[in-house]
Amino acid sequence: MKVEGRNAVRELILNGATIDKILIQNNLKDSVITEIVNLAKSKKIRFQFVQQNVLNAETATKHHQGVIAYTSEFKYSSTEEILEIAKQKNEDPFILILDGIEDPHNLGSILRVCECMGVHGVIIERVRACQVNETVIKTSVGATSYVKVARVANINNEIEKLKKKNIWVYACELGGDDLTKTNLTGGVAIVIGSEGRGTGKLTLKNCDGTVTIPQYGKINSLNASVATGIILYEVVRQRKI
Amino acid sequence: MKVEGRNAVRELILNGATIDKILIQNNLKDSVITEIVNLAKSKKIRFQFVQQNVLNAETATKHHQGVIAYTSEFKYSSTEEILEIAKQKNEDPFILILDGIEDPHNLGSILRVCECMGVHGVIIERVRACQVNETVIKTSVGATSYVKVARVANINNEIEKLKKKNIWVYACELGGDDLTKTNLTGGVAIVIGSEGRGTGKLTLKNCDGTVTIPQYGKINSLNASVATGIILYEVVRQRKI
Repeated sequence: MKVEGRNAVRELILNGATIDKILIQNNLKDSVITEIVNLAKSKKIRFQFVQQNVLNAETATKHHQGVIAYTSEFKYSSTEEILEIAKQKNEDPFILILDGIEDPHNLGSILRVCECMGVHGVIIERVRACQVNETVIKTSVGATSYVKVARVANINNEIEKLKKKNIWVYACELGGDDLTKTNLTGGVAIVIGSEGRGTGKLTLKNCDGTVTIPQYGKINSLNASVATGIILYEVVRQRKI
Repeated sequence: MKVEGRNAVRELILNGATIDKILIQNNLKDSVITEIVNLAKSKKIRFQFVQQNVLNAETATKHHQGVIAYTSEFKYSSTEEILEIAKQKNEDPFILILDGIEDPHNLGSILRVCECMGVHGVIIERVRACQVNETVIKTSVGATSYVKVARVANINNEIEKLKKKNIWVYACELGGDDLTKTNLTGGVAIVIGSEGRGTGKLTLKNCDGTVTIPQYGKINSLNASVATGIILYEVVRQRKI
């Protein structure tokens, strides 16, 4: 992935993104270029001064402004790879499925919780959902380097696959069975719906059940990552009994 | 609480803060003043055009720039009031104690979780900790209107008070007893440490026990509001058995 332009590259470095190298035009000496060079030095990022024609040949946007940074693209996984990890660890599969989480901060926080709770992998949809971008990576405080994220065309197809492997799939929604009373042992996949519309109707229908976190307040609205943390904890707790 | 100055008041309205009224100098007609008037109209906030000398008499900062907004100050509670609420509800006290949470987004998220989980109240310290400000109110998505927050000089004094009332106080820290195996029934207060340094040494010593959320990842670092959500859920779960 190429990130081009002075401010974009400066922000990328400041955001702590993993940068393979930065190419900088060798006859530019303004303050932003100087700042980028100093940031790269302080963060030990490899950079190289090159002729303008090298940048002209490399640019994807035609607006490189004298700077192009190369960052590693996030390497997505697959449902099969996630299942393979569970098998290698000799553990019942423990999977999170996201039905359209749109906010990168929420996705990052959710991936952070998943990594802490020992989830084997997370399944997200290719469209209508936040992908693993720089904000997600940053918010996950490094979890994206460890937790597998499968990007699929349609989560309902994956739910079918999981059910055929005797993995029970539960949506986390209001109006379902009490989370504290639901048996979540064995292979399990939890579906978390989007911030605005929750879990889709078809997906809800495809799930084996719906669980609800007991809530007592007037606002009755847990943040997506907190709800994820609670339900994953309940799975972990039941596995430890 | 007075919020003074054009940009400050504009941001206050845009942030959705509760505003009692806005005083606007009557001979000013620039674009920001116009925007404030339009925003106040659209959000149905009471505003009034006044002579400059009225603002001069009201200002606390001497830099009102022709605009002063009056917002309700957050009304703090006390440990005694929190205990009284538990008594009125005929429930075992269920209290959260924050040992120096500094980030207003974390405090807001924590108050949101507390409201959902039916906590009777939250105790925070007057110094070295984030107070309930506009960011906290906004991040709590309204929970601050419902959950009691006691602001105290020293949480250790409050912990002593609670222990004398047979409320068991547990710190949530790494290296403690497994949360899934700890009896948290009866009156209980949970201590959550600050983002950077965790729970203070003296406070840890004053607690009846330390509980740890089981974690399996490489980063081993749950966000403060997620950790709070999980431990409060465990208390709720044990109360429901």
